Amino acid sequence: MSLLDEVKDKIKELDSSIARSLDGISQVRTLGDAMTYYPSAGGKRLRPLLAMLIADAISGTGRKTIPFGVALELTHNFTLVHDDLMDRDEIRRGIPSLHKKFGTSTAINAGDALFARAFEMLATLDDPAISQAILRDFSWMVRAIAEGQQLDMEFESRDDVTEKEYLTMVEKKTALMFWMAAKGGALISGAPPEHVESAAEYGRIMGIGFQIWDDLLDVTGDQDKIGKKVGSDIMNGKKTMIVIEAMGRLEGGNKEKFLAAFNNPNATQEQMNEVIQALHDVGAIEYTRKMASEYAENAKHNLDFLPDSEEKELLMEFVDFMVKREH
Amino acid sequence: MSLLDEVKDKIKELDSSIARSLDGISQVRTLGDAMTYYPSAGGKRLRPLLAMLIADAISGTGRKTIPFGVALELTHNFTLVHDDLMDRDEIRRGIPSLHKKFGTSTAINAGDALFARAFEMLATLDDPAISQAILRDFSWMVRAIAEGQQLDMEFESRDDVTEKEYLTMVEKKTALMFWMAAKGGALISGAPPEHVESAAEYGRIMGIGFQIWDDLLDVTGDQDKIGKKVGSDIMNGKKTMIVIEAMGRLEGGNKEKFLAAFNNPNATQEQMNEVIQALHDVGAIEYTRKMASEYAENAKHNLDFLPDSEEKELLMEFVDFMVKREH
Repeated sequence: MSLLDEVKDKIKELDSSIARSLDGISQVRTLGDAMTYYPSAGGKRLRPLLAMLIADAISGTGRKTIPFGVALELTHNFTLVHDDLMDRDEIRRGIPSLHKKFGTSTAINAGDALFARAFEMLATLDDPAISQAILRDFSWMVRAIAEGQQLDMEFESRDDVTEKEYLTMVEKKTALMFWMAAKGGALISGAPPEHVESAAEYGRIMGIGFQIWDDLLDVTGDQDKIGKKVGSDIMNGKKTMIVIEAMGRLEGGNKEKFLAAFNNPNATQEQMNEVIQALHDVGAIEYTRKMASEYAENAKHNLDFLPDSEEKELLMEFVDFMVKREH
Repeated sequence: MSLLDEVKDKIKELDSSIARSLDGISQVRTLGDAMTYYPSAGGKRLRPLLAMLIADAISGTGRKTIPFGVALELTHNFTLVHDDLMDRDEIRRGIPSLHKKFGTSTAINAGDALFARAFEMLATLDDPAISQAILRDFSWMVRAIAEGQQLDMEFESRDDVTEKEYLTMVEKKTALMFWMAAKGGALISGAPPEHVESAAEYGRIMGIGFQIWDDLLDVTGDQDKIGKKVGSDIMNGKKTMIVIEAMGRLEGGNKEKFLAAFNNPNATQEQMNEVIQALHDVGAIEYTRKMASEYAENAKHNLDFLPDSEEKELLMEFVDFMVKREH
């Protein structure tokens, strides 16, 4: 049974809690419609699921994490709304992106309102001390995500982005939300500080691996499964792990082929196949795959504090799902 | 001595606390520069000042409100950044607006980061229970501000905005931040619930009066003092209290004159003078002035719970400053 099948009931519960948090959310109809547009269009709910699984594994208290998990999911959606606008992405989850559908101003405003709604959820946690501890980390995380987004935008106009800079950006923009999910789940479960830190580290490292794997899928994935053309990141000129490796490893004619396809929305499938073959030949793909695997293993080691259990097993599977998924 | 002279030292302390909250705020230079751009360009610090004055009047604990006040000021600045972008305003505090200077994407992102930074400040309050109570109201307030902004944008394309709708918009977009300032100050000062509610109501009602007065100043103010052409709101097609009154009261030739100047950036000073004279003649200006005064008096009555003191006197002067200021 796959992970998503095993946790089907949990995801169903999260789906309905997320929907409830936005039910009748605004008397101003356009704003309410815009706020619910992304959250109701799906998504795997990975972040609230992670918080729930951690608390289940520590003390069987997964359901107590739901308001916190909803806050994570709303924050994730707020960042998608604003990022799509900043990155001029026109499609999200198979539908027109929010600013295409509702306009720029409403997109800015609906993102802000989702952000605010997330913090309203944090204020509903039972224990004020835990609520405050989570608020401290959560607000810092959102600011770090903005830094990651800023770096990502700055990388667009640079050709000398290093692996280290890339990893810093990914940690901020993507991994910290998994760090927070795991840390918050552990805090709510009543874990002692050293276990909270291990859980947080598990989330953070897995989050980095998740993004590296995502970058890899762009060239190794199946078009039907990943829902976009193979090589899209290259054609869109994104500075992914694969692109950074390509820049550093390719030479001569292969480098020329890569540069002809890079940031070129009109690159043909044939061109892209040649580039991908070249990436295989110089070991860029193998290197990136290995790196993702190392992050996955490293993440798992941070769960050593947990006794063996079915719940711990789910957390192990969660890593494999995140870093070995096909889409 | 004017209010701003009397509280000069408090404002100085707030200025430096605000600056400190953003000192070295980001390793990503553009983001850090953008985040500090508005807060360091001035502003009267009315919201944190109000929180401080309330706590001083209740229990001499004004300084304890500073982190909360900084959160208010950062939130105020975040809303200015995003509102300027949504409203396409190109000047703020005498300098190019943030998106003109740093671009749209950085403006969205810097606004988000300021918003996050505000909530980081809330997490530093001493008492977790008070921190949580404030978080609940504060996050709700930010969402309500987004609703107010959405209404304001929707009003642009409508000619039938009622006074009641206008007041709802103003309460959300402007007054709730003063409501929060006063309520948070009272909570931090340790006031009992009924006094907290009175303080909150004082802030809310004064905030509505503040905006009505602002609308009035557009046609009664002195160009040099208000820092913009007299009648700018009319020329920019804003739906202010004055404009709503004009729409309802003017008739015949006067109505035509008004409509010729409304939403017409090329309206002449002469045209505007005629419109303003007509507004006087039909009692629109007197009506609006009276309304602002009533809000001011009403706000003051909510301070009846406080014994007479110099601090209470400052809160009374604060109302007069907000609702009778010349700029």
